[in-house]
Amino acid sequence: MKRQFYIGADIGGTHMRTALVDQRGSIIEYQKALTDISRGAEQASRRLTEQCHRLMAKSEELSGTVRSIGLGVAGKIDPLQGRVIFSPNLPEMRNYPIAIELQEQTQVPVFMENDANAFGLGELWLGAGREIGNWIGVTLGTGVGGCLVLGGKLWNGDHLGFSGEIGHMIIDSKGPVCACGMNGCLEAHASGSALVKGASENLAASLLENSRFPQPSHTDNLEPEDVYQEALRGNPATIKLFERMGWALGLAIGNLFTFLGIRCAIIGGGVSESWDLFIEPLRRSLVDHCCMLEESSMIVKKSQLGDKAALFGAAWLARNEMIQR
Amino acid sequence: MKRQFYIGADIGGTHMRTALVDQRGSIIEYQKALTDISRGAEQASRRLTEQCHRLMAKSEELSGTVRSIGLGVAGKIDPLQGRVIFSPNLPEMRNYPIAIELQEQTQVPVFMENDANAFGLGELWLGAGREIGNWIGVTLGTGVGGCLVLGGKLWNGDHLGFSGEIGHMIIDSKGPVCACGMNGCLEAHASGSALVKGASENLAASLLENSRFPQPSHTDNLEPEDVYQEALRGNPATIKLFERMGWALGLAIGNLFTFLGIRCAIIGGGVSESWDLFIEPLRRSLVDHCCMLEESSMIVKKSQLGDKAALFGAAWLARNEMIQR
Repeated sequence: MKRQFYIGADIGGTHMRTALVDQRGSIIEYQKALTDISRGAEQASRRLTEQCHRLMAKSEELSGTVRSIGLGVAGKIDPLQGRVIFSPNLPEMRNYPIAIELQEQTQVPVFMENDANAFGLGELWLGAGREIGNWIGVTLGTGVGGCLVLGGKLWNGDHLGFSGEIGHMIIDSKGPVCACGMNGCLEAHASGSALVKGASENLAASLLENSRFPQPSHTDNLEPEDVYQEALRGNPATIKLFERMGWALGLAIGNLFTFLGIRCAIIGGGVSESWDLFIEPLRRSLVDHCCMLEESSMIVKKSQLGDKAALFGAAWLARNEMIQR
Repeated sequence: MKRQFYIGADIGGTHMRTALVDQRGSIIEYQKALTDISRGAEQASRRLTEQCHRLMAKSEELSGTVRSIGLGVAGKIDPLQGRVIFSPNLPEMRNYPIAIELQEQTQVPVFMENDANAFGLGELWLGAGREIGNWIGVTLGTGVGGCLVLGGKLWNGDHLGFSGEIGHMIIDSKGPVCACGMNGCLEAHASGSALVKGASENLAASLLENSRFPQPSHTDNLEPEDVYQEALRGNPATIKLFERMGWALGLAIGNLFTFLGIRCAIIGGGVSESWDLFIEPLRRSLVDHCCMLEESSMIVKKSQLGDKAALFGAAWLARNEMIQR
């Protein structure tokens, strides 16, 4: 019998990651590229197909076969129709049947999940969530995603195409406008986009006069990483952006602890690399905003799989769906 | 064999309700009294014991026996120790071993739940939640309680002594102070206490000059019902209190729909009798604050068991615990 492989793919607002993964969750080959969704969903889909074909060739080199592909995509998705219903951070992907397309091009079964749910499946399989029954997952990237694990399983709610969307919980209804059109979502306080937007506004207001940021006219290219570096250099206005981020995360997580009667959260995604700047404000905010739990009993952990969590989760999904059959 | 009965008891911030209930959920005898917690936990506990003895006597008249007692109590509770850990609306009950006390006095097994969870068990057994898999329960009384039903079962989280505490989710961190000590909880916007406090403040600010409310010096005795009647008479400042209540409920429920990926809520408790004044603002707020669902797919229903829901739920708990043994 040929060696059995799976492909995990994570299509985020900024990056597209794909990997060939074996049964036990070891990565055989890993690829990362820009999603570059502004060039259209079809282009992005074509690049995804190319990447999968490359991984399939690799699996043949190893005398193996790719049994199935798992896809984690940012946004509200329809797993049965294999399409993205809508996605604030991948607007061009709206209604695009990306999973169907990929299945036709590769002739391999494709399964689909929201990218933050895929993050949850990854951390549950191989990461920080392995031994915890109930936890809230948060992914900090271009946007803010989330998931909910109950009884050691990913919670899918009423199967409406979304669940765990912590990024669109409203933290402050008079707060900044979000990519989804509402005001004051967690995402508008705690995402990479929110950091960049906040820093740009600071620049416009000349709060960063001695910063190493590019001039106001060039802020289109600012990255969350630039904002992080600026805060590390001690710029107070930029540090405040991370404090706001921690405050908002603590409020959202605290509210969910209060309602769900649970006490553990796992935070990942690229922007969680700024952990040292937001974790203390987050913990203070949790204490201030959750009256049901003592500080010592609340657990907030960092993802163990880093930027590969959703990739592993997508591979797990692919594997699990084949086992279920 | 003797007829099998159960006692359900609901100890709220204002009223104490007890009933003798048969296997199928019919009420044989019902009693209602003031909780009057300001006279102390011991006094309240003594009255509860008296009420239970009266119901036990009734069951004997009917040649039956009371197999067990279920207790729904407002606050964070420790079901194993049979005590209230703390309760913003029954502060005197803190650490009082009310279930142990009752069990000793009656020599009947006593089981305990938070009152809003008991509400959920009642609506799940005989009310509006019977045929819905996943829903959020909200009880509007002196405070705001809540519960979560997942897969047709009451969700108990990590068994920390609380779950479904929607009343202490923070809606507006700069909002009014709550009985729990935090600012801007749902309870501080949408409870009977919040209505009374709001109306008293309006009185003090002379916004209710033509109202039939008592004079400012007598507002200690204001009841939510008075505030409701005043709003029905068309007083704009009072109508605004119910609009704020609907707004806050819609925001909290919308946030939970977004995170849980579910779409149904059931609202009960004494103050839900003001339904006609808050339901439209609530629905508008839901639409404004939940970007994941269409208006038509969100369901908000009124409790079917009215002020007896928690009583039925407590009786169900008593019955179920005996069946489990």
